[in-house]
Amino acid sequence: MTRVAVIGATGYAGAELVHILAGHPDVRLAILTSRQYAGVRFDKIYPSIRGIVDLTCRRFSADEVCDLADFIFIALPHKLPMELVPDLICRGKRVIDLSADFRFKDASIYESFYQEHTAKNLLVRSVYGLSEVYFDKIKDASLIGNPGCYPTSILLPLIPLLKADLLDTSTIIADSKSGVSGAGRSPALTTHFCEVSESFKAYKVAEHRHNPEIDEVLSLEAGKPVDITFVPHLVPMTRGMLSTIYADTVEKICREDIMDCLVSFYSECPFIRIYQESMLPDTLYVKKTNFCDIGCRLDERKNRLILISAIDNLVKGAAGQAVQNMNIMLGFDESAGL
Amino acid sequence: MTRVAVIGATGYAGAELVHILAGHPDVRLAILTSRQYAGVRFDKIYPSIRGIVDLTCRRFSADEVCDLADFIFIALPHKLPMELVPDLICRGKRVIDLSADFRFKDASIYESFYQEHTAKNLLVRSVYGLSEVYFDKIKDASLIGNPGCYPTSILLPLIPLLKADLLDTSTIIADSKSGVSGAGRSPALTTHFCEVSESFKAYKVAEHRHNPEIDEVLSLEAGKPVDITFVPHLVPMTRGMLSTIYADTVEKICREDIMDCLVSFYSECPFIRIYQESMLPDTLYVKKTNFCDIGCRLDERKNRLILISAIDNLVKGAAGQAVQNMNIMLGFDESAGL
Amino acid sequence: MTRVAVIGATGYAGAELVHILAGHPDVRLAILTSRQYAGVRFDKIYPSIRGIVDLTCRRFSADEVCDLADFIFIALPHKLPMELVPDLICRGKRVIDLSADFRFKDASIYESFYQEHTAKNLLVRSVYGLSEVYFDKIKDASLIGNPGCYPTSILLPLIPLLKADLLDTSTIIADSKSGVSGAGRSPALTTHFCEVSESFKAYKVAEHRHNPEIDEVLSLEAGKPVDITFVPHLVPMTRGMLSTIYADTVEKICREDIMDCLVSFYSECPFIRIYQESMLPDTLYVKKTNFCDIGCRLDERKNRLILISAIDNLVKGAAGQAVQNMNIMLGFDESAGL
Amino acid sequence: MTRVAVIGATGYAGAELVHILAGHPDVRLAILTSRQYAGVRFDKIYPSIRGIVDLTCRRFSADEVCDLADFIFIALPHKLPMELVPDLICRGKRVIDLSADFRFKDASIYESFYQEHTAKNLLVRSVYGLSEVYFDKIKDASLIGNPGCYPTSILLPLIPLLKADLLDTSTIIADSKSGVSGAGRSPALTTHFCEVSESFKAYKVAEHRHNPEIDEVLSLEAGKPVDITFVPHLVPMTRGMLSTIYADTVEKICREDIMDCLVSFYSECPFIRIYQESMLPDTLYVKKTNFCDIGCRLDERKNRLILISAIDNLVKGAAGQAVQNMNIMLGFDESAGL
Repeated sequence: MTRVAVIGATGYAGAELVHILAGHPDVRLAILTSRQYAGVRFDKIYPSIRGIVDLTCRRFSADEVCDLADFIFIALPHKLPMELVPDLICRGKRVIDLSADFRFKDASIYESFYQEHTAKNLLVRSVYGLSEVYFDKIKDASLIGNPGCYPTSILLPLIPLLKADLLDTSTIIADSKSGVSGAGRSPALTTHFCEVSESFKAYKVAEHRHNPEIDEVLSLEAGKPVDITFVPHLVPMTRGMLSTIYADTVEKICREDIMDCLVSFYSECPFIRIYQESMLPDTLYVKKTNFCDIGCRLDERKNRLILISAIDNLVKGAAGQAVQNMNIMLGFDESAGL
Repeated sequence: MTRVAVIGATGYAGAELVHILAGHPDVRLAILTSRQYAGVRFDKIYPSIRGIVDLTCRRFSADEVCDLADFIFIALPHKLPMELVPDLICRGKRVIDLSADFRFKDASIYESFYQEHTAKNLLVRSVYGLSEVYFDKIKDASLIGNPGCYPTSILLPLIPLLKADLLDTSTIIADSKSGVSGAGRSPALTTHFCEVSESFKAYKVAEHRHNPEIDEVLSLEAGKPVDITFVPHLVPMTRGMLSTIYADTVEKICREDIMDCLVSFYSECPFIRIYQESMLPDTLYVKKTNFCDIGCRLDERKNRLILISAIDNLVKGAAGQAVQNMNIMLGFDESAGL
Repeated sequence: MTRVAVIGATGYAGAELVHILAGHPDVRLAILTSRQYAGVRFDKIYPSIRGIVDLTCRRFSADEVCDLADFIFIALPHKLPMELVPDLICRGKRVIDLSADFRFKDASIYESFYQEHTAKNLLVRSVYGLSEVYFDKIKDASLIGNPGCYPTSILLPLIPLLKADLLDTSTIIADSKSGVSGAGRSPALTTHFCEVSESFKAYKVAEHRHNPEIDEVLSLEAGKPVDITFVPHLVPMTRGMLSTIYADTVEKICREDIMDCLVSFYSECPFIRIYQESMLPDTLYVKKTNFCDIGCRLDERKNRLILISAIDNLVKGAAGQAVQNMNIMLGFDESAGL
Repeated sequence: MTRVAVIGATGYAGAELVHILAGHPDVRLAILTSRQYAGVRFDKIYPSIRGIVDLTCRRFSADEVCDLADFIFIALPHKLPMELVPDLICRGKRVIDLSADFRFKDASIYESFYQEHTAKNLLVRSVYGLSEVYFDKIKDASLIGNPGCYPTSILLPLIPLLKADLLDTSTIIADSKSGVSGAGRSPALTTHFCEVSESFKAYKVAEHRHNPEIDEVLSLEAGKPVDITFVPHLVPMTRGMLSTIYADTVEKICREDIMDCLVSFYSECPFIRIYQESMLPDTLYVKKTNFCDIGCRLDERKNRLILISAIDNLVKGAAGQAVQNMNIMLGFDESAGL
């Protein structure tokens, strides 16, 4: 049994990790840390897990964590991980970080959207943890920058089509919609039940931090600069993310060609479900699962493709994909515990 | 046009007052105050009212308020009103306070559940603003202690039956359910969308502050000490309050007698709707209205009465009843603006 | 007091008409008809209106309706209105129809998306009831084809910019999101609470019936054929519609120019609110109002405009705009009762 | 691997069975039947299970079911099971029926609330499947009448206290609240999203069919006739059930005594969680789990006990408890697959 740590266990992504890992057949939860709840039993904060996990949250200490755990998940806000990770890597631990700190190859992009990067040298070693696309690199990685939820939902449907050169990259628009858990657990007016219920709105239009993450990966895969228009929206529901992606095709093409491209690219991937028939993805179908569901339609008169993807933002969009990456890294069955 | 002030205009009860008063034919909103948002236009905080109310929130100043307004609503948390009211009353203003500060006749009850009362002498003058029951006193009052939402939903169905001596007062249980807006607008984990959605729970069981308010009024109306069991619950919805009230009848009685008692007591009351037929109250039917809907069933084998009442906690349970009281005090049509 | 009829009063749009008209100062609800609930009091079906409207639904009879009412609203499913309207118009009544039957100038478009049109000759006389845009024609019309909710939310932000020739019409994409009430009141699996809650999905992608309605009006206003990509989505909320509209600008332009164009086009319109500052429209801000809120952002590197509009689908998207049109036709204050 | 059948697999309880059994380590889903969806793949109806279950629903045939399966779950509406079960039992199969058909010892009670019972002779053999209370009988049973969700949530907290003779049985009131999935999957106005959202209401007050089921079991366990007052309510959420139960204690007692009684009664039970500290049960804590959480408060001045229990109505209230019973019957780990 591999002993695992969750650093930052009491936010929504951290807690989702705890719930998944508690049921994982090949690992044992060894230590949970929390800045806010150090000294409090985890099941006081998430009573749903009462009777299943009896750990008490501790304040983070590298010595303690490295002593108790072999494999480390970090679910802290941006900036904190890059302060902790170099030491953990030094001590020979394998780390999956769910923040943006280790997602970028180009530190200057990170720095222009976040802050100064204090562990730049690790960016070469870190692997972007989009499990299906970077499987081979993930296998051998010691440090994973786990993808954001928006990027996951946008990259998975687009990458196969970009690699096959089917899309006019200058026309890509991603209109994404997320459940409220994506905004985190800290109380704020924007997550107040009475402000969310019956509210649907766009936010951070064309300025969202996930844009550079998406663009960097798409550019890499397309082999040329890609710069999409990305508009996130907030949906009055707890979990789920749906992205509706628009792109003109480079030439007249039929829906079956698109489907074939997606199906063959993901043929070995247990968590990608392609909707070939008349149905379309729905966040309800992926709730509490690690699936990414993908469907498409073609607006034929305009050669405009409409891709639709659905994930659970906390699972495939965060904790689930992190566990999938761990499974790949440790040679477990890719879907163990998921 | 009577000029009105709303002190504490940006909480949910205050904002509901602003929305109602903005459409009232006989008054003009003259000044809004807010501790947190002084200097900010009200329609930045509640954009729904954009184009209708263009006032900017001010910091409270008794001089300014008394200069600009003839009639004053206070929608501040407990304790603050008793510091402001004596001065406003001195200056000859009529005041409706939505907090608990002026609801009690007996200051010691207030003090045992809240804190020291610093304006005890006004408790004699203040009238408990349960509009239908204390109409005549409200007419001439200069100071109203506007009822809480839970007490409103429990007192209105019970008072006629207690006055008619139909119930065994030792057996009264009120199982009440409230929408989330009752918890106020300040962000807290308990009002976070993800913690509320799919959550139903009791809170402050048999210890809620509304208990003494209910008991004091019921005892007064019954002419003997009444001490009910009261359990509030939180419902995953924004507005609405439903109370299911259980009480044994003093003797065998039929449902029609109960109905007759309620119908005749409230025959002149435009905001009380008695359900005599098979339907029962539902919070959806009273949403955004000042109605209190009342229905009942009898568990005949046990002579146990089940009363069900529904109100909108922010309207009849707060701002709407406050405006109804203003209408009564100023001689307007009782339902003006409602 | 003008006497009004609502034909099909018990669907969501019909009931919204009843609620609005019941509070309208210049009209009197004279007769309600319903196929399903003939003989049943309206307030048994919508108990919220108990104590306000005491009419009983009747089976439709042209004689009775024309006898009792001067002005007629029809809120029936497509196809039924075109069977009733010719007779009503013949008898000199003014009619607002909320279905698609009288929205098209070109009967063949209607026929290719719905069915044979049996009252084609009336299409010349009928006026498309987009109040702000066709105000002058509406004033004198005897028959209004009231716009659909999706078209309203898409046409209002686009028309001023198309008329000013600012947009590349071949690039227009409307990604729209609607609350569940848009699906009507008839029970169906797609509106079951457990299937809707936590569900977000696209439906009828690039095949929705509102497409031709949008395209016909846009083409007319742009003076050239316009054919947009339109994708509707379902949001787990009761009311509200938000459209996120993407279009490339014909040349480099700044956000202020867009704003100026919108503000000046709608300067006299009480129900259009343009968001010039940093805020963006939210369905919560327009709930239960007749407002259409419009905001925009510019993705400057790509000269791509992002327009965002919000309406209440049952009010500005149906019953509210219908009453606004009635106000215009009868010379009342445009916002009376709204 | 035991081969299992689910008869009536496409209602909410049936589908929950399919989801749980699909992940059960010791059984294999062998056949699913459905009246409405015969011939349709199960994952077309519940796409969430795509990639996990690939069975096609069949029309029920006793021969086929008995040929393919060793253990049979029935999730059909009342009345249908009693027509099928005698034959299945004859053929030596073990059956768990989720309807009311085999819950009663006394056929006349069933007949006065439902209809004529056509398999009365099986009532002697059938065991009431309240897992924790009737564990020993369940072990050897060939036919289980699986408890209703309301009875489960009311019986589990009450039975230990009644057996210990701590409560005045004439004063028991159960005020229960259920999520909407309890109303089933068939579309109806009462489950329409727009009618449920923001709606909280009581229904079938003091006339609900679960009353006799509760009373029969309580009377048996108390050793004397018990007849409680039971009022169910509908909560705007998908899953979850909370019961607030009031009862006077027979003598002055402290909260610890109540707690001790519950804790010791359920000491060996993995799915009962007693809240001894200040927290109280919440439906969110048991969502998608087989737990029944129990807490209590004492209104000391009146010697009135307030018990609060929470379950997931589809899991511990239906499919989960059914699987728990199967585990007990087949000698598996009681919590296998749960």
